[in-house]
Amino acid sequence: MPAGPEERKRLLATVRGERPADLFVRGGTIANVYSGELLDGNVAVVGEHIAYVGESEQAVGPQTEVVDASGMIVSPGYVEAHSHPWSLYNPVTLAEGILPLGTTTVIADNLFFFMQAGSEGFAAIAKDLLELPLTYLWVARLVSQSPFPGEDEVFRLGKIRELLKRDYVIGTAEITRWPDLASGDPGLLEGIAAAKAEGKFVDGHMGGASEARLSEVATAGVEADHEAITRQEALNRLRLGLWTMLRGSSLRQDLPELLPMVTEDGVSTHRLIMTTDGPAPEYVAEHGFVDGLLCTAVKNGIPPIQALQMVTINPAALLRLDWRLGGIAVGRQADLLLLPDLVSFQPETVIARGRVVAEKGKLLATLPTVDWDCHESRPRFDDCLDLADPTLYPLRASGSQVELPVIHLESAVITSRQDAQEVRLKDGRVDLEDQPKVLHAALVDREGGWISRSLVSGFAGNLDGLASTYNTTTHILALGKQPEAMAQASQRVRELDGGIVVVQAGEISYELALPITGMASELPFAEVVEENRKLSRIATEAGYEFHDILYTLLFLTNDFLPALRLTPLGLLDVKSSSILVPAETPIAFNS
Amino acid sequence: MPAGPEERKRLLATVRGERPADLFVRGGTIANVYSGELLDGNVAVVGEHIAYVGESEQAVGPQTEVVDASGMIVSPGYVEAHSHPWSLYNPVTLAEGILPLGTTTVIADNLFFFMQAGSEGFAAIAKDLLELPLTYLWVARLVSQSPFPGEDEVFRLGKIRELLKRDYVIGTAEITRWPDLASGDPGLLEGIAAAKAEGKFVDGHMGGASEARLSEVATAGVEADHEAITRQEALNRLRLGLWTMLRGSSLRQDLPELLPMVTEDGVSTHRLIMTTDGPAPEYVAEHGFVDGLLCTAVKNGIPPIQALQMVTINPAALLRLDWRLGGIAVGRQADLLLLPDLVSFQPETVIARGRVVAEKGKLLATLPTVDWDCHESRPRFDDCLDLADPTLYPLRASGSQVELPVIHLESAVITSRQDAQEVRLKDGRVDLEDQPKVLHAALVDREGGWISRSLVSGFAGNLDGLASTYNTTTHILALGKQPEAMAQASQRVRELDGGIVVVQAGEISYELALPITGMASELPFAEVVEENRKLSRIATEAGYEFHDILYTLLFLTNDFLPALRLTPLGLLDVKSSSILVPAETPIAFNS
Repeated sequence: MPAGPEERKRLLATVRGERPADLFVRGGTIANVYSGELLDGNVAVVGEHIAYVGESEQAVGPQTEVVDASGMIVSPGYVEAHSHPWSLYNPVTLAEGILPLGTTTVIADNLFFFMQAGSEGFAAIAKDLLELPLTYLWVARLVSQSPFPGEDEVFRLGKIRELLKRDYVIGTAEITRWPDLASGDPGLLEGIAAAKAEGKFVDGHMGGASEARLSEVATAGVEADHEAITRQEALNRLRLGLWTMLRGSSLRQDLPELLPMVTEDGVSTHRLIMTTDGPAPEYVAEHGFVDGLLCTAVKNGIPPIQALQMVTINPAALLRLDWRLGGIAVGRQADLLLLPDLVSFQPETVIARGRVVAEKGKLLATLPTVDWDCHESRPRFDDCLDLADPTLYPLRASGSQVELPVIHLESAVITSRQDAQEVRLKDGRVDLEDQPKVLHAALVDREGGWISRSLVSGFAGNLDGLASTYNTTTHILALGKQPEAMAQASQRVRELDGGIVVVQAGEISYELALPITGMASELPFAEVVEENRKLSRIATEAGYEFHDILYTLLFLTNDFLPALRLTPLGLLDVKSSSILVPAETPIAFNS
Repeated sequence: MPAGPEERKRLLATVRGERPADLFVRGGTIANVYSGELLDGNVAVVGEHIAYVGESEQAVGPQTEVVDASGMIVSPGYVEAHSHPWSLYNPVTLAEGILPLGTTTVIADNLFFFMQAGSEGFAAIAKDLLELPLTYLWVARLVSQSPFPGEDEVFRLGKIRELLKRDYVIGTAEITRWPDLASGDPGLLEGIAAAKAEGKFVDGHMGGASEARLSEVATAGVEADHEAITRQEALNRLRLGLWTMLRGSSLRQDLPELLPMVTEDGVSTHRLIMTTDGPAPEYVAEHGFVDGLLCTAVKNGIPPIQALQMVTINPAALLRLDWRLGGIAVGRQADLLLLPDLVSFQPETVIARGRVVAEKGKLLATLPTVDWDCHESRPRFDDCLDLADPTLYPLRASGSQVELPVIHLESAVITSRQDAQEVRLKDGRVDLEDQPKVLHAALVDREGGWISRSLVSGFAGNLDGLASTYNTTTHILALGKQPEAMAQASQRVRELDGGIVVVQAGEISYELALPITGMASELPFAEVVEENRKLSRIATEAGYEFHDILYTLLFLTNDFLPALRLTPLGLLDVKSSSILVPAETPIAFNS
């Protein structure tokens, strides 16, 4: 945080040599991301800020904590410019996982906190998180990732405007519904104008947009995009004036494909940024966080100092934060890493907001706890919602129907329409006895207001029942061959106040409570990694053939990936924006 | 200006290929400052914005104005990030002079407009100037360049806050009184905090600051500096996290000294900017404006595309304007230059805000006029102010005084203290008969409230009398050997409502009215160039030995250059901040 008047006085006294430093990093080689140089020197810290960078040791006093950096590169803490801190981990446990890996600033999407807890709840959470040594700053969503009844009121412009006035909200979040932006949707344009009026940042998300459609979106004032998956797409974005985020995440590891734009095409790197987007916990455990991006970048031929710029000063400049963080200079936040090498980029020591918080990959700091419930972040379930009846879940169809649209998974997140033939019906409901590769799929409103039903293939052929609030709606997504197992799993998810539950052979074979918005656990980082691994194993055993079960669950309900999605409004054909099978509303229990 | 809803609709229609472009630049090689590439292509324009960049010619319709760019480089219009548009030229006549040279955006200091016309007057002027094809955006001063009675009220924080809310005010202006900033002056810090709260930019001015003092200033949140005069000073600034502006102006041509930081030290250029600061009109006529900086940069070994980045996208990024200007991309302001080469950087054709405004160095656009008087920009002179009495001007001293402090000019703007010996007094006033190299100097409040007197040497030994409001106070600065000539010149300046007047041998040998704040003329650009040349010639004839008479006059009254200055409070010793000879207040006319 910027220094207040009192801290500034102390800082100034140390800058002047009139007061010893609180912390002194001695004898390292400093990565100066402003000039692109490696320069030998010391760094003095007072409170949360840097008070001196240079050769003098004058700031060392009797009480000063001296950190020996000899033989080390001293780097600014890494900045993750585009993050979704709710992939089983919550913002606190993510900090626990990534602070030891050197990421000290995270720009976080407010989506589920805002949708679940409202403006005030989200603001209270964001304020609590300011106590962490890791700096969370937020971007505010203008729309959800899946249309739902009442969406307009939830994302009312007045609320967004109010959020954009807060210090810790630095812009608007990715607009996954970019075709609306391309067509000049007035509500979205007003939201963007509100961000511009506050001098704040406008993030984008233009996955799959052609060069022509990108141009349409660009007229709306979007400043950045992280969705390029080919070198040409990345070049298009950069040339179009978009700050171009190159992604290496659990879902997609695009860096090796994208980085030749630098090493071969030779483009300027000052508007390139690297991002982890929202990696699954097990991926972070295996491949690191921003440190992993740096390692990949350098392996792919990017000079180390340019790679560092891409995760420090470049994102800081895009986000209008470069006067307060993203580099090692007097007055900046004291987020410093001691790196043994510029190969792994894993820090020996991590200093965040002026304190040593991690060493040799171990967190030393005790992170403050957040009282999530007190901020209304627990998903609400209506008392009348009855999930026990197995007949609730199968798709209903008229007696003559023998061909039905099926969401077929082509990859972890891409679907195609692959209609089921000769579907048998029983009491007006789909019976899957003859369809070995097809599952029932139902998305159930936690308040009992609606239910959307469909069929899914290519997910996990041997799955009896799974229920999960871990999806872009945070309602209950139930999948399975056995309606009874789906009912059992859904009931358990409800008892857990949100979570993921798998039922096989009549038994609960996996359960994880996700009481924080239905997306995140309260367990420590290491435990959510284990839970993620266990879920992956169980999914694979049930026939899941892809690499990222969490993203599969997350995106089955969204409105922005091809081709069919199960949304609160019904089975959506994304390209035509048409509902193929409307939601039933309200749910007729036991009908 | 960003597109409003109606223009955005038209823009989007052309982006989509549904509506022909208004203007189409065909067949050039486009300087893409985002990627650092030169790419063949066309540029389509609708209204004031770019609607397409690429190979297609689809946007050409029957009504489209087609500009042939074959064989040309198409560059973004140049951005001058640090400008003082009142050096005899006014903002309109400066635009007249520099639009044909390719500068299409100017970030302008509001100092004299604000001091003379107040908040509302300045705002009215700034709004009128939005009609120009050249984009003027403003930075607001927090303090003046010379202390005066009532300064606090003029620069009251509430007024600054209100200005910072306006779209066309993009930050706070250089704080020449940087030692106050280094010492943590609360008023200045509040002004800076107000800019940060609006997401706006904070400019600096740390001329002569040591590395240690620079660090003190950096803690205050200043983001940029343009005062480095040695390569080491420039490196210090860049490494300290300051966006570093490299200057080539009439007063100082620092680029050849500074640019080896790139060509030899190899620093990153993404935080380097080039600026003309505030060049005298005759200098612009001879050396160009931003085009001249580019020419010098390339001659000194900077790759052309990096040089272009330093005057387009780099300043736009610093100023948080990169989403609306500073590059050639869809949605950006259509400021485009057709350059025959990347050597002179002088455009063959200039397109500003979507219109062809200049060709082959000639302005084609008719610039709107500004009713300066209606905006209170004319300096006010009190009716009771009597300037006719020659005894008003000489320094007064007591009978015994024989040694007096003299402002001695070491260069055009640097002074030293060089006391006059054996000074004769007549009726309690200094008599200079025996002091051939010394002049009387008096600064007279236009309202008659005070007069400061001193002695000056090294200025122009044969000068009978000169009077000028062209100084950092905009009051009447009178210089000369002959009190009668000083009185005559001062009276004429008053009749002109501000200006510069020279009297030699009893005759007015030079006069130029500067009724716009006392600093700027209403004459066309070409005529102020001639007036500037004539003044330089006359000054030289009177013994002036330096290269920039305008800066000498401007800075004799400031409070931020060594060593002695004549200010409204009296003769100031800058380093000690002490007044050596206090102002007389109120003026005792004919005493």
